[in-house]
Amino acid sequence: MDANTNKVMIDRDDVVMLLIDHQAGLFNLVKDMPVAQLRNNVIALAKAAALLDIPVITTASVPEGPNGPMIPEIHHYAKHAKYVAREGQINAWDVPGFVKAVEDTGRKTLVMTGTLTSVCLAFPAVSATAAGYKVYGVVDASGNWSRMATDLAIARMAHAGVVPVDTFAIITELQQTWNRPDAMEYAGIYGEHVIPNYQLLMESYTSEQE
Amino acid sequence: MDANTNKVMIDRDDVVMLLIDHQAGLFNLVKDMPVAQLRNNVIALAKAAALLDIPVITTASVPEGPNGPMIPEIHHYAKHAKYVAREGQINAWDVPGFVKAVEDTGRKTLVMTGTLTSVCLAFPAVSATAAGYKVYGVVDASGNWSRMATDLAIARMAHAGVVPVDTFAIITELQQTWNRPDAMEYAGIYGEHVIPNYQLLMESYTSEQE
Amino acid sequence: MDANTNKVMIDRDDVVMLLIDHQAGLFNLVKDMPVAQLRNNVIALAKAAALLDIPVITTASVPEGPNGPMIPEIHHYAKHAKYVAREGQINAWDVPGFVKAVEDTGRKTLVMTGTLTSVCLAFPAVSATAAGYKVYGVVDASGNWSRMATDLAIARMAHAGVVPVDTFAIITELQQTWNRPDAMEYAGIYGEHVIPNYQLLMESYTSEQE
Amino acid sequence: MDANTNKVMIDRDDVVMLLIDHQAGLFNLVKDMPVAQLRNNVIALAKAAALLDIPVITTASVPEGPNGPMIPEIHHYAKHAKYVAREGQINAWDVPGFVKAVEDTGRKTLVMTGTLTSVCLAFPAVSATAAGYKVYGVVDASGNWSRMATDLAIARMAHAGVVPVDTFAIITELQQTWNRPDAMEYAGIYGEHVIPNYQLLMESYTSEQE
Amino acid sequence: MDANTNKVMIDRDDVVMLLIDHQAGLFNLVKDMPVAQLRNNVIALAKAAALLDIPVITTASVPEGPNGPMIPEIHHYAKHAKYVAREGQINAWDVPGFVKAVEDTGRKTLVMTGTLTSVCLAFPAVSATAAGYKVYGVVDASGNWSRMATDLAIARMAHAGVVPVDTFAIITELQQTWNRPDAMEYAGIYGEHVIPNYQLLMESYTSEQE
Amino acid sequence: MDANTNKVMIDRDDVVMLLIDHQAGLFNLVKDMPVAQLRNNVIALAKAAALLDIPVITTASVPEGPNGPMIPEIHHYAKHAKYVAREGQINAWDVPGFVKAVEDTGRKTLVMTGTLTSVCLAFPAVSATAAGYKVYGVVDASGNWSRMATDLAIARMAHAGVVPVDTFAIITELQQTWNRPDAMEYAGIYGEHVIPNYQLLMESYTSEQE
Amino acid sequence: MDANTNKVMIDRDDVVMLLIDHQAGLFNLVKDMPVAQLRNNVIALAKAAALLDIPVITTASVPEGPNGPMIPEIHHYAKHAKYVAREGQINAWDVPGFVKAVEDTGRKTLVMTGTLTSVCLAFPAVSATAAGYKVYGVVDASGNWSRMATDLAIARMAHAGVVPVDTFAIITELQQTWNRPDAMEYAGIYGEHVIPNYQLLMESYTSEQE
Amino acid sequence: MDANTNKVMIDRDDVVMLLIDHQAGLFNLVKDMPVAQLRNNVIALAKAAALLDIPVITTASVPEGPNGPMIPEIHHYAKHAKYVAREGQINAWDVPGFVKAVEDTGRKTLVMTGTLTSVCLAFPAVSATAAGYKVYGVVDASGNWSRMATDLAIARMAHAGVVPVDTFAIITELQQTWNRPDAMEYAGIYGEHVIPNYQLLMESYTSEQE
Repeated sequence: MDANTNKVMIDRDDVVMLLIDHQAGLFNLVKDMPVAQLRNNVIALAKAAALLDIPVITTASVPEGPNGPMIPEIHHYAKHAKYVAREGQINAWDVPGFVKAVEDTGRKTLVMTGTLTSVCLAFPAVSATAAGYKVYGVVDASGNWSRMATDLAIARMAHAGVVPVDTFAIITELQQTWNRPDAMEYAGIYGEHVIPNYQLLMESYTSEQE
Repeated sequence: MDANTNKVMIDRDDVVMLLIDHQAGLFNLVKDMPVAQLRNNVIALAKAAALLDIPVITTASVPEGPNGPMIPEIHHYAKHAKYVAREGQINAWDVPGFVKAVEDTGRKTLVMTGTLTSVCLAFPAVSATAAGYKVYGVVDASGNWSRMATDLAIARMAHAGVVPVDTFAIITELQQTWNRPDAMEYAGIYGEHVIPNYQLLMESYTSEQE
Repeated sequence: MDANTNKVMIDRDDVVMLLIDHQAGLFNLVKDMPVAQLRNNVIALAKAAALLDIPVITTASVPEGPNGPMIPEIHHYAKHAKYVAREGQINAWDVPGFVKAVEDTGRKTLVMTGTLTSVCLAFPAVSATAAGYKVYGVVDASGNWSRMATDLAIARMAHAGVVPVDTFAIITELQQTWNRPDAMEYAGIYGEHVIPNYQLLMESYTSEQE
Repeated sequence: MDANTNKVMIDRDDVVMLLIDHQAGLFNLVKDMPVAQLRNNVIALAKAAALLDIPVITTASVPEGPNGPMIPEIHHYAKHAKYVAREGQINAWDVPGFVKAVEDTGRKTLVMTGTLTSVCLAFPAVSATAAGYKVYGVVDASGNWSRMATDLAIARMAHAGVVPVDTFAIITELQQTWNRPDAMEYAGIYGEHVIPNYQLLMESYTSEQE
Repeated sequence: MDANTNKVMIDRDDVVMLLIDHQAGLFNLVKDMPVAQLRNNVIALAKAAALLDIPVITTASVPEGPNGPMIPEIHHYAKHAKYVAREGQINAWDVPGFVKAVEDTGRKTLVMTGTLTSVCLAFPAVSATAAGYKVYGVVDASGNWSRMATDLAIARMAHAGVVPVDTFAIITELQQTWNRPDAMEYAGIYGEHVIPNYQLLMESYTSEQE
Repeated sequence: MDANTNKVMIDRDDVVMLLIDHQAGLFNLVKDMPVAQLRNNVIALAKAAALLDIPVITTASVPEGPNGPMIPEIHHYAKHAKYVAREGQINAWDVPGFVKAVEDTGRKTLVMTGTLTSVCLAFPAVSATAAGYKVYGVVDASGNWSRMATDLAIARMAHAGVVPVDTFAIITELQQTWNRPDAMEYAGIYGEHVIPNYQLLMESYTSEQE
Repeated sequence: MDANTNKVMIDRDDVVMLLIDHQAGLFNLVKDMPVAQLRNNVIALAKAAALLDIPVITTASVPEGPNGPMIPEIHHYAKHAKYVAREGQINAWDVPGFVKAVEDTGRKTLVMTGTLTSVCLAFPAVSATAAGYKVYGVVDASGNWSRMATDLAIARMAHAGVVPVDTFAIITELQQTWNRPDAMEYAGIYGEHVIPNYQLLMESYTSEQE
Repeated sequence: MDANTNKVMIDRDDVVMLLIDHQAGLFNLVKDMPVAQLRNNVIALAKAAALLDIPVITTASVPEGPNGPMIPEIHHYAKHAKYVAREGQINAWDVPGFVKAVEDTGRKTLVMTGTLTSVCLAFPAVSATAAGYKVYGVVDASGNWSRMATDLAIARMAHAGVVPVDTFAIITELQQTWNRPDAMEYAGIYGEHVIPNYQLLMESYTSEQE
């Protein structure tokens, strides 16, 4: 049985990844999770997109001001990512060029992140869902200014039809099986970036094998 | 693309802000968030309403008794706010004058807060939703007597159709874009009242510019 | 405007209160909230039922065994409460005499509590909702063995149509207004049992008045 | 009244229990609950399945690698459990043999667990629900890599129609009544594995009886 | 062996109890513990002092202002308590009449509480220790404005020679043995005020005895 | 180098283990740690004492009353343990027979536990220290009614000269080396009772070895 | 009795206040307390120093780099504060000009803060104590990168002889009495900056007086 | 003024760094801090030792068994580190070769870490202090199985004379000043490994400079 026929799960050939406003200044506002974990989760998504050849679209909010520059790892690891500039719009879905970049891929499933969660993720996630897309909101690759704000954003997005997920869940859903030639690259992403305890398991395992 | 055509997002020309029972005594009952953050979030909403010229309606529950006086900043910063007295009703939506004040604006979108969340916000939020209004409940500008009560109130409101939001999210949704002449006034509200780390970013940025 | 015409809010003339399995042994299992607060919340509901002349039905699960006796305050403060014995059923709604006692009141709105929340409240709450009742589940007058279990029970009940509420919210919803002769009795319940800070407000206020 | 006629509650004659990926390595990744409680909750489910003669299907993800072997207690206590091997699939519902094992039971109600929650439980739970099964997801017998991931998984599963429950709730729902010959075996499971305070109650009670 | 000969433990014939600044307004500032628990702990100390016939001295800081009146239970339960007025001094040990009241008892061991802990307890506790008294600071019958402030106050007092204790510990140290005629009165204090779970144990026990 | 010559570390030939008031009722009062962990830590100490042939003395406070019976595992695993009855004394060190039982061993180093920590451990620990013994207080094998009370008890004991330790630390200090014939029995104690993750490591390791 | 004769309490005529490294960038690293509370606590100290005419010395670490500029409120409210530049030294006490500025005041009691606590406060606090000064370390006006780091810094400083205090405690210790003409200015500092609930008490009180 | 003449601060020419038992299996037991932070803190110490040319001695406990191999980064970044094997001793100070390796350096100040904190750090830290060394115990580069165990270990070590510190504090104490040619290498260590927010500050700063 092929997972692509398991219709309730994600169809990786229909996915675009949208990584929104992951900027040095905005990361300093994050209080709902450790910022090191956030940064690693974003990197993990970028690496996974490269591995799976999933289109990536990025954008930033006034990166020349206090919000700061985008973290460099995104375009470093996902060299095929396309950057769309904004003219001040807070909701990336208000940016015609951004929506067009999505439409140009011809894909209808969006894996979306945004710093801060309740604004930069929730606004375009709700907008895109209303526009007919299936949206996965990766909450622990977004980062918010308070845990209460995150709880509210999860409730808002879930009721609007966005599927709330975590980083590890969405990448494994895209990976689908360990029975693939590049399986160890996924394991590397999980261990190095998402679940540090997984790296320890692999180190112990490898050590014993030797 | 104009956000006002992005129908799933708030239409700021249709908004009334309802700030309910933000009183000194009741604030002393708040245990689900720091009371300083709560007070600042309420002030931020009042300032944003003034900036956006959004009608504001306030009310208080027995302010001459132990519940105490309304915090003075609301009417100080939102001088156009209209105060509606109550005759003991706990649910502000049970007060004919209050409902009429809303109806007089001709607007159908309510940004609502209330101390305590599970009573003074949840009751009128659920009532107004049932009466056909679109209601945004700003939970972190409300304050409740326990975190468990807040979780319950969020669940109740969300299932009744109220959109749960945080202060920063709702103001940015109203602001819509940084590409406006008064953008720095919004930045000032965020930095001074809502996200103190944002003020630090601006101070570092300004210092470098000099 | 009479709140009884505000159909989305509770109709106190249609309410039965069901207080389930509040037993000394079971209270010792409670880990999701302070047991002193739980006990006081249950007492507050019993007192409010007496004040409002709302029918109360109680039951206990094997009270002669390790689960222990029902806490005595319930029948002490709600002398009109009717106790229904069980023959081992875990879900009180499986007990014909219990359902009949509810039916005999001719009322269709249930304010329900149960220790432990995810069993003794959630089972009859979901069952009664399926049977056509409107059910308010008072989660912080129930008590559960872990906070995670409570979160799961809230999600389960909310999706099944139960309205999750806290003790203070449901009593104030029943009280409806401070403009009633017995208003101070409500204040006494809140201060003595539900929100200890409220008692402090009243003490400071009274002291100044003198 | 027989609970089996109380249609909203679980029908124990229609249940299959699916215990997925409870492996030593994966347990070391669990951060949303104490791993000792997790292990005991899984054991409790295995024991309850044996007591109730409910079919059990197990599976493991690459158990010869870093994920490690399945904890031995499952097949020790549920000797009738059937193990289905996988060929790398992450979502157990992608495994034809696994789905067939479920279909072979002729039952349509699934009590499901999986380590890690947001992957090994959520994926098959959502898939099976889409395939027409009634699914109970036992979150505190699953274990996840962060509490935030668990919150997201609960929201995702609940919105997809999965019923989120805790271990104690699902076993008592299956037990249905204390008025059965093997009642003390249930009590033993609760005290020894799920709620340690319950064992203390029984010890005090027994001591007094003597 | 008589505990009074166990010199390292408290000598109850040498004890004075000092209950400082337990006022309604100040209690509203307490954030390091539930205020209901604080109030009950103070009541427990007052009752214990009455039971043991230990001298009690109370004082309040500007009780006619925002700090509010002393909670009435102290003098209600410890009718022999002596109240000493202040003339604005923050450190009660700066008040000559207060020190004289202590000296008049001829006792040298002080059981001391004060709201807020880091000021109203720590200042006189450190002062009295420097003056040669043995001081027990009952931290969980004091209450402070932040948990961090409490940690700092414990460190400060401990290094100054104050013995930091909790309410249950100090009363049991004074009680010394259950082999005394009034033992059940102590049990009543613990169950009703200090450890609510203890009351549950007694209720279950008594129920079985019957 | 023999650790027994490393004078600052414990000398296992000089140790007596005192396990005080580990009773079913009192365990139900414990709120500073999971009671399952507490029970397992006490069991671990009993097993370690048997393994190391260290004398064990136990006692209980009014075990025929609400405090309940001692948990049976202590004397089950440490069959050589000597039980000393009390006549109501709260501080076990006030019991002549208890002190004599210690003196009869001729040993001067005490590894001590007691439920509740700030009373049943702290009182005899401070008393024995004053009497010239070197005392290790095993705080996480004791259990207390609040975390704040535990913090206070640690501060009190440490300033009185008691060495505060955790269960794993004290058993490993007694074990001293893995280079001993019974090393796997220690590993079993740690994995089964103290650190559940350690058991997982061993299961993964053993699985690979095969 | 004059507190200045109560030698164990602070002698305000001997105090210098040292406010170290309170810079916008460094504040963004603070994770052990809300940064808004930290900023307000520092402001409170600056205002108190002005009120009491206590010398203030400030310094900053590489303020032209990423550490950012000093927050402007310090010199705004304490206009008499003297700024001492550094040449890269991390420990301000390594700066000859800084030590000389302290010596020039002729005072020997230091009220000291520093961001980050375990470096910018702990290093000069320990150094100055070793140099013979009496040092009060105001931990909640310092801010640190983790709560664990703060716990370690408190332990280190306390064992080195530094007196650990919180902001409210040290200002009230300097204020000494409410019986002074400028008492309301102190109340204003506490309410506006340190304990927001105190402001609420004053507002309720004033409202009633009117 | 040279910090080396500020005798209370660390003398970097007298330091040896001891990194003990940082093994993959043991890291999986760590519950008192995020394991990613722990691993990065250990890496930071190794890099700092290389930068400062401080001798490093490592050891591991039965690395061929379930405890697992040492994390490879230590010897990768501190190539001059000397590894000392053990023969089963739990306390590294019981290993003659380990003590000799320390003595061979001729240095008397030890910066020490160990997984798990209350055993692998606390035992040798206390032993070395007793042997006349000045010991800094870096608690957040050690990792422990429970937060309570860490609190106990801090108390034990502090009372034994060990100086408890955090990773950032000890490296900055060794760095001493930003006025050195290799200052940016320190900044890199802090940003990349210890305080992720620091890296964000530097990225924003650099971006603006351009």
